[in-house]
Amino acid sequence: MPEDWKKIAAAKQQRITNSIPEEWRIDTSSLNDNVMDIPATCGLLTKSELGITNSSATDLVAQLANGSLRSVDVTTAFCKRAAISHQVTNCALEFFPEMALEQAKELDAYYEKNGKTVGPLHGLPISLKDQLRVKGLETTMGYVAWIDKYDSEDSVLTAMLRKAGAVFYIKTSVPQSLMVCETVNNISGRSVNPRNKHWSPGGSSGGEGANVGIRGGIIGVGTDIGGSIRVPSAFNFLYGLRPSHGRLPYGKMANSMEGQETVHSVVGPIAHSVPDLRLFVKSVLDQEPWKHDSKTIPMPWRQSEHDAAVKRISSEKLTLGFFNNDGVVMPHPPILRGMEQVVSTLRDCGHTLVDWKPYKHDFAVDLIQGIYASDAGKDIHAVLSASGEPAIPNINDLVDPSRSGVDITTLWDVQSQKWNFQMEYIEKWNEMDEQLGKEMDAFIMPITPTAAIRHNQFRYYGYASAINLLDFTSVVVPVTFADKDKDKKVEGFTPMNDMDKQVQEEYNAEAYHGAPVAVQIVGRRLTEEKTMAIAEEIGRLLGNAITP
Amino acid sequence: MPEDWKKIAAAKQQRITNSIPEEWRIDTSSLNDNVMDIPATCGLLTKSELGITNSSATDLVAQLANGSLRSVDVTTAFCKRAAISHQVTNCALEFFPEMALEQAKELDAYYEKNGKTVGPLHGLPISLKDQLRVKGLETTMGYVAWIDKYDSEDSVLTAMLRKAGAVFYIKTSVPQSLMVCETVNNISGRSVNPRNKHWSPGGSSGGEGANVGIRGGIIGVGTDIGGSIRVPSAFNFLYGLRPSHGRLPYGKMANSMEGQETVHSVVGPIAHSVPDLRLFVKSVLDQEPWKHDSKTIPMPWRQSEHDAAVKRISSEKLTLGFFNNDGVVMPHPPILRGMEQVVSTLRDCGHTLVDWKPYKHDFAVDLIQGIYASDAGKDIHAVLSASGEPAIPNINDLVDPSRSGVDITTLWDVQSQKWNFQMEYIEKWNEMDEQLGKEMDAFIMPITPTAAIRHNQFRYYGYASAINLLDFTSVVVPVTFADKDKDKKVEGFTPMNDMDKQVQEEYNAEAYHGAPVAVQIVGRRLTEEKTMAIAEEIGRLLGNAITP
Repeated sequence: MPEDWKKIAAAKQQRITNSIPEEWRIDTSSLNDNVMDIPATCGLLTKSELGITNSSATDLVAQLANGSLRSVDVTTAFCKRAAISHQVTNCALEFFPEMALEQAKELDAYYEKNGKTVGPLHGLPISLKDQLRVKGLETTMGYVAWIDKYDSEDSVLTAMLRKAGAVFYIKTSVPQSLMVCETVNNISGRSVNPRNKHWSPGGSSGGEGANVGIRGGIIGVGTDIGGSIRVPSAFNFLYGLRPSHGRLPYGKMANSMEGQETVHSVVGPIAHSVPDLRLFVKSVLDQEPWKHDSKTIPMPWRQSEHDAAVKRISSEKLTLGFFNNDGVVMPHPPILRGMEQVVSTLRDCGHTLVDWKPYKHDFAVDLIQGIYASDAGKDIHAVLSASGEPAIPNINDLVDPSRSGVDITTLWDVQSQKWNFQMEYIEKWNEMDEQLGKEMDAFIMPITPTAAIRHNQFRYYGYASAINLLDFTSVVVPVTFADKDKDKKVEGFTPMNDMDKQVQEEYNAEAYHGAPVAVQIVGRRLTEEKTMAIAEEIGRLLGNAITP
Repeated sequence: MPEDWKKIAAAKQQRITNSIPEEWRIDTSSLNDNVMDIPATCGLLTKSELGITNSSATDLVAQLANGSLRSVDVTTAFCKRAAISHQVTNCALEFFPEMALEQAKELDAYYEKNGKTVGPLHGLPISLKDQLRVKGLETTMGYVAWIDKYDSEDSVLTAMLRKAGAVFYIKTSVPQSLMVCETVNNISGRSVNPRNKHWSPGGSSGGEGANVGIRGGIIGVGTDIGGSIRVPSAFNFLYGLRPSHGRLPYGKMANSMEGQETVHSVVGPIAHSVPDLRLFVKSVLDQEPWKHDSKTIPMPWRQSEHDAAVKRISSEKLTLGFFNNDGVVMPHPPILRGMEQVVSTLRDCGHTLVDWKPYKHDFAVDLIQGIYASDAGKDIHAVLSASGEPAIPNINDLVDPSRSGVDITTLWDVQSQKWNFQMEYIEKWNEMDEQLGKEMDAFIMPITPTAAIRHNQFRYYGYASAINLLDFTSVVVPVTFADKDKDKKVEGFTPMNDMDKQVQEEYNAEAYHGAPVAVQIVGRRLTEEKTMAIAEEIGRLLGNAITP
């Protein structure tokens, strides 16, 4: 049996390797820790292909729509760059350039014949986390047991993206079970951060983070039940949207703990700019996903909400709360500096920044951690047993066979506590609004206590997961990079608790030098239009809004 | 202990009785089975008060807003009529005319002073199911254990209605546990249907049904997890809205099985007309309930959806599905005639009616029944044990101590099945749209297999509960009354199963003569504006849209 799973995993890994055409292979024998320059220097991409892959999705769809670009060329460019990306970060669980080029050809033919696009994403390659099903392909989600099972239909979101004209070419790696913020599994091993192979690209949408980070993808689709969109966005200097539950369709995707509804995983985009996030969201909502996914709310793109936010930004200015420390774990110096940079930049531009007390985040983090573990890992264990593969070390905390799952009465009590907490939190927000005499538009907080983290060091999920429990809309904004000269280790740090101690001890100015630093902008539930507009403005003020 | 609970219940019942002022007591010693005429004939209400209570809420708020009516007069009228209503139907668990008149006086004073209303419901009495908390009052929900506990704050909806200007004066009776469609508990006993004391007013919002039915109330607030708004509406010839989950705020209400989120109970209005339902919904949404209840979706009243539906009705005409029989239980002859009347009336007016196959309703009914019982009644038993009161006979099916509750893995499986079923159902709807080349706007179906039912005969919840599992929007439209000459018992009926047999055997043309017959109009999820507009048109075509 142990031999069996290894063979099956090895065969799948070989298929992944084989999926890269001979002519797209590069020499990876003497790479630097930072491989961000490889796509430009390895010689595989033409100048034109580099230009395409360095562009924005918004620009590309405009050019595809006016006929100045063909999908085959755009798709070829991204396939080649993703081939590089995989070879240097190990980000793919499926790579299928042939199928992609077939799709691109069909789209080009359609355009040729009809003089118009099939939809707002006509011809644009979009990368998918290996949870989204694509008809004809495998969705292993990093589980050996799910190898060799080929999907007979698309996930709802895949189908909508396809209808909007998107081209699929890669399914990116995830950690076994999805329940951790690093990306390692027994099929493809570990994905690494293109900025430093000693750092994680984050997780669980870590393959997306790495691939979009190095521009092997332009918009990637991730999911988030405790940071899995936001952490990879943060660790790869990207923007990421965690929409509130029900805004975008999750139907017919693979998942861990299917049927768990106490805290819903949500699906959302990872990209290089807010306009590209917005392009994605609008394109999906234009397809009326609520007609195909019962959990999706019939809420079209609300241009009026976007316009009101833009107007507010320019005329009345924003009122934003912020906090650096959730009261459980103190962030590392680069994150504190990032927060300070955001706050002072906004203040300098005339926006109002107010202290936002993180209301009972400690309670929230404990509650959601209990929810993740409410079946004591039975679901995960069942899938592991099916192949005989061992658990990755990172999920030991979650999967504790000595515990039994909660009973129904306990679950209902937990769900009551969740609702009460959400209600109390929004009342605090209302009190703040009343005190200010105007709305607090959003609040700004860390998304992780660390910059892009060293392998096996991701310990504290609370900055991300408290927002999942609240089901607030959150957008990650890249801010800066850790700097060994500016971000000195704190001497004589007094930890609030053991977790705080462990996290702070991990900081090392030298080791983290250059690691991406981000913050998240948190809006009320289902405020995607407004929160993205605010995030865009913050990115603009920081000078990080223009795609490089 | 048994003596104790009886004493406590008796004391509460005495308080209810005492809450009716001496001068509002009527002689109930020789009432007919049908008491609908008592308010007009007993002599307690002045001609003006009869006029007010026979009016519509929409008219009343207009008159209150233009100063031609005072809230004190409107409130007095409804308090007096509700006093009669309670004496003849036993519909109240709390009656508090003094507090109501105090509130009315304040509203009148505000209007006097400011020349304007406090909100869209200014001065209008609204009756509340005894699940909604009103600061200073008890919420027993029919449980003896909850007597003598006084609420320190309003429920979210209560607070919104209060802010909109509503006056509270009565909290209406419910069945112990809420989980049945008749209204009986160990505090106040049984509520009866004002049209015939041998019939139930339905449940669980049965006190609302009876009170609004006899116009002791003009808009009543009910809740629905398996028919509890719709059944009392149907049994009392009223309109009722079961909105989809998340449209109206449920926060801080009492409930059975708190924290159960697999199928959400929803709150909605019961009234004499769709415009009055709409007045309620708009008034609540105008208060932005999502800012105070985390489960409420930020979806304001969508006038454009309403307007589009109205336009569709008048120009393109509607396309409506329908079915008479869900494949589990055949409705009684009066219901089949009611369905036929609705279908033929609509066809005669140029609308398109198409067969809608009830997709797997049998499966849905079993699944949701299991969800109701997923803790094997532990929650209910705990509250019963706290006082020592016995369970009402109607909940024996639900609370089966021989079963254990489901474990978390089973619950997740049930939740997966629910989602899959919802997805399949909307795909069937999509297929129908495709087949028709246009949208099926809604479908029409029975809400119960029987007209207003004889006591202790409510057995089959499936016509209501399948819609709860789908979380579709549903509006009940009153159609006609059972007629012993037209609705003959079916001879030689061949039952599909034992439940079908039991339900059909209950039919008796004589016993049901005159019982209200209704249908429900079912729209997709969160289509309250459109589904209400369609229901209004159907009521209009049937001649039941004008308040008598």
